Amino acid sequence: MSNLTISADRLAGRIEELGRLGRDEQGRLVRVATSDMDRLGRDRFVGWLQEAGLDVAVDRIGNIFGIWQDDTNAGQPPVMLGSHIDTVIDAGIYDGCYGVLAGLEAIESLKEAGFAPARPIVVAAFTNEEGVRYAPDMMGSLVFAGGRNLEEALAAIGTDGSVLGKELERIGYAGQHQPGFLKPYAYVELHVEQGPVLEREGIAIGAVENLQGISWQRIVIDGVANHAGTTPMSMRQDAGVAAARVISFLADRASASPTPTVATVGTIAFEPNAINVIPSRATFTIDLRDPDEMHLREEEMALAAFIDELAASAGVTVHAESLARFEPVTFDARIVSLIEEGARAAGLSCRRMTSGAGHDAQMIARIAPSAMIFVPSRGGISHNPAEFTAAVHLAAGANILLGVAARLAAD
Amino acid sequence: MSNLTISADRLAGRIEELGRLGRDEQGRLVRVATSDMDRLGRDRFVGWLQEAGLDVAVDRIGNIFGIWQDDTNAGQPPVMLGSHIDTVIDAGIYDGCYGVLAGLEAIESLKEAGFAPARPIVVAAFTNEEGVRYAPDMMGSLVFAGGRNLEEALAAIGTDGSVLGKELERIGYAGQHQPGFLKPYAYVELHVEQGPVLEREGIAIGAVENLQGISWQRIVIDGVANHAGTTPMSMRQDAGVAAARVISFLADRASASPTPTVATVGTIAFEPNAINVIPSRATFTIDLRDPDEMHLREEEMALAAFIDELAASAGVTVHAESLARFEPVTFDARIVSLIEEGARAAGLSCRRMTSGAGHDAQMIARIAPSAMIFVPSRGGISHNPAEFTAAVHLAAGANILLGVAARLAAD
Repeated sequence: MSNLTISADRLAGRIEELGRLGRDEQGRLVRVATSDMDRLGRDRFVGWLQEAGLDVAVDRIGNIFGIWQDDTNAGQPPVMLGSHIDTVIDAGIYDGCYGVLAGLEAIESLKEAGFAPARPIVVAAFTNEEGVRYAPDMMGSLVFAGGRNLEEALAAIGTDGSVLGKELERIGYAGQHQPGFLKPYAYVELHVEQGPVLEREGIAIGAVENLQGISWQRIVIDGVANHAGTTPMSMRQDAGVAAARVISFLADRASASPTPTVATVGTIAFEPNAINVIPSRATFTIDLRDPDEMHLREEEMALAAFIDELAASAGVTVHAESLARFEPVTFDARIVSLIEEGARAAGLSCRRMTSGAGHDAQMIARIAPSAMIFVPSRGGISHNPAEFTAAVHLAAGANILLGVAARLAAD
Repeated sequence: MSNLTISADRLAGRIEELGRLGRDEQGRLVRVATSDMDRLGRDRFVGWLQEAGLDVAVDRIGNIFGIWQDDTNAGQPPVMLGSHIDTVIDAGIYDGCYGVLAGLEAIESLKEAGFAPARPIVVAAFTNEEGVRYAPDMMGSLVFAGGRNLEEALAAIGTDGSVLGKELERIGYAGQHQPGFLKPYAYVELHVEQGPVLEREGIAIGAVENLQGISWQRIVIDGVANHAGTTPMSMRQDAGVAAARVISFLADRASASPTPTVATVGTIAFEPNAINVIPSRATFTIDLRDPDEMHLREEEMALAAFIDELAASAGVTVHAESLARFEPVTFDARIVSLIEEGARAAGLSCRRMTSGAGHDAQMIARIAPSAMIFVPSRGGISHNPAEFTAAVHLAAGANILLGVAARLAAD
């Protein structure tokens, strides 16, 4: 297999072409899940699957599958390669798309080389991995893995009040297949690191052996609206100031954590949101992550305790709601080893690492042996138009993916 | 004059009727300046002016005037009574409306009693006192007093992107008169206190001798958007956390101030505002007030210094823009004395006080001797549907206004 390689130009060309689809009037990449922009990306991807001669299947949650099988291996549990093509608002072009297009590239290259796999190889693009418009994130792979009820997911209400199921129908991606209709023999996801480790250490390939736990919460703080000019500071029940205390507490505590805890408040809104009125309500979200489940729980408990004290001292009421909660995931040891062996055989530097981000792989790991491959992200920047990975790294990662897929498909 | 009194029932009835106009589907009072809801209130007010037999005049910034004059006094500088009828979002029914309707009530009562003033008496409702949709607040009276260029004010862009001048035309209140076409001999504004002092001290009438200074700013903090899961806390440039630091700083500093400084952050927005993306931008407003100009400047300078340190330590850039800046105002000593005398004659308890809120009176004070009368606000609550002043206090304040107006109109 070692002399089999992907076409670096075809892969890079497709990543760039897909990255041009779904731009708003300011030029920002905004292929948010199940939007018209997402549809543009999905349509192009399906076109490529068809050009590659793969069977296209879409399930009821909108996951798209390109299936390479023949009479000799049809019906065997497939090797699945995949990720997602939905994006955040003002995204880079690599997050998710790289893994999906590299999976297609690996299959096409093996097909063109006349490789005869003992089992089907499938490339998957999962719905709403980013969770920008609908919570939770990684929804498509979660439903596919049976971790969330399909009807519940289809009924998800978006930040814009839209309903996911209706949006899927509207853009033509409410498929016929039941999620989980394919039972993967193994799952491998290639992704840009979205962090600074590989670049800083000058390492080409990350063999991802585990993934940190994620806790998403929505916090609603209720105080009392009052006149900004006539209400003495001592008589205020200011929901906005209380929210600021929580944001500062989270940042200070995560910064001081012995484990690589990260805490982010990415969204916020005040009511009535008037310059001369003390906020009566502050609503914001918390994204808390830690690779150690016990420590993640400690962080959640510390937050809850701080909120209780705050409610008493600031004269506000606080409601916390969990939007998503995933424990840390340990990936399949054999696949992680295959990634390391592939890197060694290709003469590429490699290290084992933890994924800081959530990925579809953590969901598929519930139903099949899974692992991930990382390549360097310049400056560790992601979820930002400055996201960048050099072509040489993109090609190297895709070749490792091809090798691991071929090895697993030979079982 | 002492036996002349207003009709408490007519005044209370009009306050309640006006308070029913301009409610949204949730029942919230939202007569925001130059909106369709504002138009409903304006139309009703103009109807009452006409029923009272007053000449109605509207100027180019939309200020509405009800003029009581006759052949003997026409052309004399008028005694002006007034306030505003625009509201904040989810407002109470007294703020502003009380002063306007009590002004009308005083004129009607004097007219009905056959009182013959030596000069016209005018009731005024000034445009956009609240400044919720367009900055600065007290815009109508500011333009009327020549403190702001008319064309600039008409070009003001709203929080919803609308243009004030176009909205005035749309709702039919872009009048023909030049702002300032009336040169007041004196101006008296009756208002609910919107603060807790009178109620707490059991005093019926506040003779307002001065008004605290106001500083409004918009702060824009720019950081770097990045992945919430993979960016170590130490590598973040989080605009949202920086905003939280500023909000906490303001609240802590104002609470510790030796003068009755108040600081409020009433509006905020994050970009891209996604749960799993570190905010690249935080935009918020600051409302800072102090009765001492020197101390208000100190607070502004302390904020600027904190922002500079923050920009350096948090790796963000901060832009501060002044939206409005008014020095503290000292009202006319004679009118304040007339208010005290009127209270004494009526057997009402009275105290001199400082206004914590901005009012149209501070603008008109630039062109005419001015003062204000306060009545108690239950719990000091305002800019809130719970705002309440008992009918007995409403009637008492209106009678003091009538007496002072009659006295000034006799000059």
